[in-house]
Amino acid sequence: MARISESTVRRLSHYYRVLEEVAAEGKRMISSRRLAEREGITSAQVRKDLSYFGSFGRRGLGYSVQHLREEIGAILGLDRRWKVVVVGAGNIGSALLSYGGFAEQGFDVVAVFDQDPRRIGQRIGGFEVLDTAKLAELTRARGADIGVIATPARGAQAVAEALVAAGVRGILNFAPRKLFVADDVPVRTVDMTMEFESLSFALTQARSPRRRRSGRDTA
Amino acid sequence: MARISESTVRRLSHYYRVLEEVAAEGKRMISSRRLAEREGITSAQVRKDLSYFGSFGRRGLGYSVQHLREEIGAILGLDRRWKVVVVGAGNIGSALLSYGGFAEQGFDVVAVFDQDPRRIGQRIGGFEVLDTAKLAELTRARGADIGVIATPARGAQAVAEALVAAGVRGILNFAPRKLFVADDVPVRTVDMTMEFESLSFALTQARSPRRRRSGRDTA
Repeated sequence: MARISESTVRRLSHYYRVLEEVAAEGKRMISSRRLAEREGITSAQVRKDLSYFGSFGRRGLGYSVQHLREEIGAILGLDRRWKVVVVGAGNIGSALLSYGGFAEQGFDVVAVFDQDPRRIGQRIGGFEVLDTAKLAELTRARGADIGVIATPARGAQAVAEALVAAGVRGILNFAPRKLFVADDVPVRTVDMTMEFESLSFALTQARSPRRRRSGRDTA
Repeated sequence: MARISESTVRRLSHYYRVLEEVAAEGKRMISSRRLAEREGITSAQVRKDLSYFGSFGRRGLGYSVQHLREEIGAILGLDRRWKVVVVGAGNIGSALLSYGGFAEQGFDVVAVFDQDPRRIGQRIGGFEVLDTAKLAELTRARGADIGVIATPARGAQAVAEALVAAGVRGILNFAPRKLFVADDVPVRTVDMTMEFESLSFALTQARSPRRRRSGRDTA
């Protein structure tokens, strides 16, 4: 698994999205050029990526939309449903719950937890917010696969440990800190403050070449 | 600028956050060990990172919290205010606007746009939602530095182009597609669906070693 790079997986996600669009348009075949579109990927990269997974287009005809969609869907694990618990019903948690688009991709929210008494019992995006005190019991009972951590940094590590102990096998982390869990539990972290800081860094360096020179990374 | 890796910038963001915590606790000195904490970074890596930027701790004493905080803040561009426009006042946009924590880090929202008549005129997190028709005019007039794109995929490229034409110098993109802008305009993309798919991929591969073998990336 470690051999398939994160960037390959991201390209597969992209192809899958294009295939869904094209399927909705009623098209039956798709070219590597169309699959590459909008992502700055070359057609050659598309053909290379897909050949790894055993799928080969036919010259002049391209790939079968339905077949390729099923194939990539299976590789990405989108041919099944995933049970998701969301911990933290603040802004980020609420945004995720209100978005709704994840259910279409196979990600079903089975429980939402928060420890704030003002949030417990409320409904967000159709989901009732439950007391974090019940996290261990309900996460296990509902067979959650994926835990989304949308809590403040403080407490996120304890939540991660509780989720893994309750059977969660992967974590999507929005808390602004690194989480430590067993090596076989994949964690993906989305840190919006860091994204902003990465931008302000890039803009600052672009403005002051002096800093740019002094700040070179030899790595 | 290209020489400083994204991962170095992320570590600097992390150090900055720790320094703010420690400053709030009233501490004057900090060890490289404390700076490394929680991120799985070694003390040696901390010392290496900071030496690039000309900051050297004193053996047994560590680093001056105030000095290091100012220094890293300046490198990250957090010693000034950045003007941010947000395009798209749906769930993601609303989450960002309601979060409020960005202002503390120097990111001030100067305008929020949406094209949906039901959203225009509403207030979200204290900000009035303006008509996207005024985007070019107001983005320029308010001197925005950073544009946040929180629109659906369709339309995001046109918004990016309009923002850059109106003087925006960096983009944070939440729309699920790649954006093409001039090379000197940094773009950071946060794609939550892709994060979910990356997790389901990892969990699927962990379950079915057959796919794992056939899917190796030689890159």
